[in-house]
Amino acid sequence: MKRVAILGSTGSIGTQALEVIARHPSRFRIAALAGGHNEALLVQQCAQWKPVLVSVADEAAAVRLRAHLGNDFIVLSGAAGLRAVAAESGADIVLAATDGSVSFDAVFAAVDAGIDVAVANKELIVAAGELLFERARASGSRLLPVDSEHSAIFQCLVGEPIERIASIVLTASGGPFWDRTLAAMEGATVAEALNHPTWQMGKKNTIDSASMMNKGLEVIEASRFFGVDADRIDVLVHRTSVAHGFAVFTDGNVKAQLAPPDMRLPIGYALAYPDRLPDRVTPSALAALGAAPGDVRARLDFEPADHERFPCLGLAYRALRCGGTAPAALSAANEIAVEAFLAGSIRFGAIARVVRETLDTLPRAALTLDAVRAADAFARRTAADAVAREVQGAGA
Amino acid sequence: MKRVAILGSTGSIGTQALEVIARHPSRFRIAALAGGHNEALLVQQCAQWKPVLVSVADEAAAVRLRAHLGNDFIVLSGAAGLRAVAAESGADIVLAATDGSVSFDAVFAAVDAGIDVAVANKELIVAAGELLFERARASGSRLLPVDSEHSAIFQCLVGEPIERIASIVLTASGGPFWDRTLAAMEGATVAEALNHPTWQMGKKNTIDSASMMNKGLEVIEASRFFGVDADRIDVLVHRTSVAHGFAVFTDGNVKAQLAPPDMRLPIGYALAYPDRLPDRVTPSALAALGAAPGDVRARLDFEPADHERFPCLGLAYRALRCGGTAPAALSAANEIAVEAFLAGSIRFGAIARVVRETLDTLPRAALTLDAVRAADAFARRTAADAVAREVQGAGA
Repeated sequence: MKRVAILGSTGSIGTQALEVIARHPSRFRIAALAGGHNEALLVQQCAQWKPVLVSVADEAAAVRLRAHLGNDFIVLSGAAGLRAVAAESGADIVLAATDGSVSFDAVFAAVDAGIDVAVANKELIVAAGELLFERARASGSRLLPVDSEHSAIFQCLVGEPIERIASIVLTASGGPFWDRTLAAMEGATVAEALNHPTWQMGKKNTIDSASMMNKGLEVIEASRFFGVDADRIDVLVHRTSVAHGFAVFTDGNVKAQLAPPDMRLPIGYALAYPDRLPDRVTPSALAALGAAPGDVRARLDFEPADHERFPCLGLAYRALRCGGTAPAALSAANEIAVEAFLAGSIRFGAIARVVRETLDTLPRAALTLDAVRAADAFARRTAADAVAREVQGAGA
Repeated sequence: MKRVAILGSTGSIGTQALEVIARHPSRFRIAALAGGHNEALLVQQCAQWKPVLVSVADEAAAVRLRAHLGNDFIVLSGAAGLRAVAAESGADIVLAATDGSVSFDAVFAAVDAGIDVAVANKELIVAAGELLFERARASGSRLLPVDSEHSAIFQCLVGEPIERIASIVLTASGGPFWDRTLAAMEGATVAEALNHPTWQMGKKNTIDSASMMNKGLEVIEASRFFGVDADRIDVLVHRTSVAHGFAVFTDGNVKAQLAPPDMRLPIGYALAYPDRLPDRVTPSALAALGAAPGDVRARLDFEPADHERFPCLGLAYRALRCGGTAPAALSAANEIAVEAFLAGSIRFGAIARVVRETLDTLPRAALTLDAVRAADAFARRTAADAVAREVQGAGA
């Protein structure tokens, strides 16, 4: 029986994790939940899962939640609440499923306590991955990827001699703009950018997929998870999102992982690791390879990613090669740029420009958690200025 | 430093193994070699590799070899020689690369002595796999597959919880007759059947590939290697032979192994296991997925195997489900039928008929090594009679 704490239980990954856990009552128990602004859902989750400990965004929300839940629950809030859920709830594994940097301290606390962490919080690994893996090595905590691509590579590397990895390959769906020219992408609308061909995700992730910044961030994540440098990480466009990643070994063999585009699979893999869940109905061999129902053929196509048309991908490689706080700045600047695009303030093509300007001016700093926070703040300010110039430029 | 003994050093697998070993002088040393009828090559191999022990087919050949090699070598012959090479040469791993049943006793002796065996001898696993794995479990010997498909599955299962295998998939090139009707295959010529699209193999294997008996025998092997029953082993036709096998897990994830069609890769994997060899130049991601040089796209196609047009495949499943000595009889009958086809005595379509008639009349027997030998002898007699009737039928 694994005791699970979820940071971000009311979000997309959090709710899907609870679906997985609900199918396996003999394997998992919920130790603690931390939710965000969807208080109604959090109340419902508490009623169903009866966690010892619950945490909400702020003290006002905590007061409301205590009124709803009564004395059977310890309700905390803010940073201290997240930290308690992660590191003091008796959990065997923490699912880090919040966005942005809100849970950084809580996850570090869990890692320092030697608790395993299933990481769906992309920014955490991008901005602070080096530090986090260092601390995990010291404490014995295992960091398990939840992103489908990293879960794929992780699965391909199970039991393998890690020094024999020649390279790793992340696949990309190519997003909604794979067939567009750079010029045609420049003025793409929000609705067009949100129209992802294969994955259902939040808005931010879907825009990142359209710009392929998503894949760039994943390249950085992959480097942290698997200790492989930028030159040995490739991206291949694979429109149907059936194969999620490949490991190429020094002996010329390649291993790939394939699965339907359903986040419950990598979530379940991370929670059950090193076991696998026994629950799925065995698909036919062809269905497992992505053949549509009734189709007797499966076909997997791959082509190289295009750094010319998707400059965000190159910017991510640049930040990875630069190292230090550059990945944190990349991620923060991109967040500001995507917000501005979603708000209708800047054009789609401006996202890459805003990020590039931010990286161009980032001061070098030794990598500490404080330096990561400073780079994040610097990047948000610099990116906001760059957004303002894009708005003026568009208005002129 | 691993000490390697090779049964069948002058054959196709044996010589490719020596190529692999030659590239890694710090990892492998040759402890002993057993060759067949190519005495000149064996003399050359002895000069290069200086094994302590050498074995040849018969005592007359041993006398000639002693004259060539002088006193630095112990030269033995026959069954005793094979056994000494396998179990008494101080080898850490034996590569079983002879055809047919000549090395059965030698491999059993190595397994009983707790020595690892890399098995390229398909008949051994088909006919006596259950017994061999039982003995290996008792002694701690590891049996490592050398066939590309089984190496693929084996690689996919490294580090995995074996009870979570939902099914396994072997790929098949489809051979030279994949696009032919059953009627058009009936009278196919030897030259047509030997024209394999992707793999370079010996004649027997190439004919087996044309009839897909090859894949049927591999289904039986896979059942023995991975403890998976017939209902959970699928065959998919994949014309380009890039992906060699898949493991489908109960949690809905699939792992695949891909590699160029080059037997030195699975040979090297088996010899180096659990490590991997460090020697290959890293291919580009696309080349690793089978893209031709200069091609920027890789494409993998899969379709179901066709039991109607390839009855040998169904006969192999039948033998596997029947169990006991049926797989041994299947393999032996097929050997007789293929010899008759290669000699021009029977039509291509008769291969399946000869095998079916043999299975139809096989008496049931409890599985022992003696029963396997008896079934082999029975099948050869029965198949020879069936061949004779086919010849008469064709002459009538």
